[in-house]
Amino acid sequence: MTVKFKRLALIGIGLIGSSIARSVRQHELAEEIVCAARTSDTRRVALELGIVDEAFDDPKDAVKGADLVIFCTPIGTYSTLAETIAPVLAEGAIVTDVGSVKGAAVKAIGPHMPSHVDFIPGHPVAGTEKSGPAAGFAELFVGRWCILTPVEGSSKAALKRLSDFWAAMGSKVEIMDPEHHDLVLAITSHIPHLIAYNIVGTADDLEDVTQSEVIKYSAGGFRDFTRIAASDPTMWRDVFLHNKDAVLEMLGRFSEDLTALQRAIRREDGETLFKIFSRTRAIRREIIDAGQETPEPDFGRVHKSDDD
Amino acid sequence: MTVKFKRLALIGIGLIGSSIARSVRQHELAEEIVCAARTSDTRRVALELGIVDEAFDDPKDAVKGADLVIFCTPIGTYSTLAETIAPVLAEGAIVTDVGSVKGAAVKAIGPHMPSHVDFIPGHPVAGTEKSGPAAGFAELFVGRWCILTPVEGSSKAALKRLSDFWAAMGSKVEIMDPEHHDLVLAITSHIPHLIAYNIVGTADDLEDVTQSEVIKYSAGGFRDFTRIAASDPTMWRDVFLHNKDAVLEMLGRFSEDLTALQRAIRREDGETLFKIFSRTRAIRREIIDAGQETPEPDFGRVHKSDDD
Repeated sequence: MTVKFKRLALIGIGLIGSSIARSVRQHELAEEIVCAARTSDTRRVALELGIVDEAFDDPKDAVKGADLVIFCTPIGTYSTLAETIAPVLAEGAIVTDVGSVKGAAVKAIGPHMPSHVDFIPGHPVAGTEKSGPAAGFAELFVGRWCILTPVEGSSKAALKRLSDFWAAMGSKVEIMDPEHHDLVLAITSHIPHLIAYNIVGTADDLEDVTQSEVIKYSAGGFRDFTRIAASDPTMWRDVFLHNKDAVLEMLGRFSEDLTALQRAIRREDGETLFKIFSRTRAIRREIIDAGQETPEPDFGRVHKSDDD
Repeated sequence: MTVKFKRLALIGIGLIGSSIARSVRQHELAEEIVCAARTSDTRRVALELGIVDEAFDDPKDAVKGADLVIFCTPIGTYSTLAETIAPVLAEGAIVTDVGSVKGAAVKAIGPHMPSHVDFIPGHPVAGTEKSGPAAGFAELFVGRWCILTPVEGSSKAALKRLSDFWAAMGSKVEIMDPEHHDLVLAITSHIPHLIAYNIVGTADDLEDVTQSEVIKYSAGGFRDFTRIAASDPTMWRDVFLHNKDAVLEMLGRFSEDLTALQRAIRREDGETLFKIFSRTRAIRREIIDAGQETPEPDFGRVHKSDDD
């Protein structure tokens, strides 16, 4: 099986890293899985879960002899980590990452990479609001897209091998240039997170409405936003710091549109409101048809009493 | 059983009306259930589903002899409907509604009500993104809050009876004044819907990112917003037209906060971003603890391939 690697080194073993470890084990995509993690607690949990063969403090120890190295840490750590591991990277290794910003990954990791490795940034568009090695699961990538953004110098063979690796974990693979990736993800992921974090913050700051009221009546819509607003704050801080231009561009458009809606409300322009509210159902239908969302009403949430 | 009504008249039989019909039947809360619906198609479906005993074109025919009348139509229809049914309302009937704005319900229905009925506006904070009589289900209100906003002149006995009615359908009941209700719901429901409709619209309008890309990569967060943005456009147009002041007030706060986040991104102020992103997890935890949300990651969505 050409996709099989000898030693997979995961730099970081949170939700994504640990999901890769589980899936790789399930599909036997590597002979050996090791990780590097900053805290002894994380290393202990990863070992206890049995998802890695060894867990190292020093990322150099993890990548030694690895033919596949995956950065699974917040983007802000990339540059230092890349510089650290560069001297010990094995001849012919594939180096990739799973970060949500690809232009920044190219800039942070690229310059440190020796010519004897293939560096191909990547981004599996999958996740949950949970963090840490215990939160991962093998099926996380199944049916989800993984975007690879090869840079100048990435070999075709390495790109094929990495694509096959993601496909073997159940992903659909797309090739894109890093700049376009960052624009697409700004609207499909980064702005939604920013808005979700923002409204949860706004609600928390109100004087006239208590927090207990926000919680009690959250079924009116608010609770849908709290899921992604519960995502890892360090990771998301780094996303916004590293995709600044695309995020500000998309945020500008969002705010313009919101101002138009605000104006329609102030002027009691029901026709404009109805027109805007009518066009959005089709998009949800298409997302469901594309297998990226559940068709069940209310996300399939169970409706039952507290004591059921 | 004191809660049992003789004849329940539902004015409108969409998601909420048909869910009430199903729950009332299941819990035997009325001897007879009838509805009024504008289109013959809706009346036919309601009858075929067996959730009402009779379906009328003219709301006057539905409310005749009813001891419980519930408005389940968009708020914009209230005033005309109230004027229409007022002359035939039975002595001692309880008249209520399920609309998301209560100040407007008081203004639209109240003045038409004869002194021999008890008018008590209500709002079950429950729903899904689906519309129409086929979309309802009996468990919709279980574990969810129903807010009643009695007005001057509502009798205590009627309030007690209506509270018991909602409790019998599985709801927790809260009493509130209409103005406070409208402020609370502006932040927990109306603004979330407005923002969701808005971002789906923004994404649909982009030139640099195709709609197919938005759909493919929606698992990055965007898809969470599309659920509530698929809600009934007429109902939501009316909500915004009738809760204008509270919505504009809350929208102003939301926009201020968003501008602060935008500024933090532009200045690369990671500390501020981290602080805002850190406070939101606790709120989700509390919503889950309060039984208003599922604790399962990713809303419990199933992760499987298209062909599973």
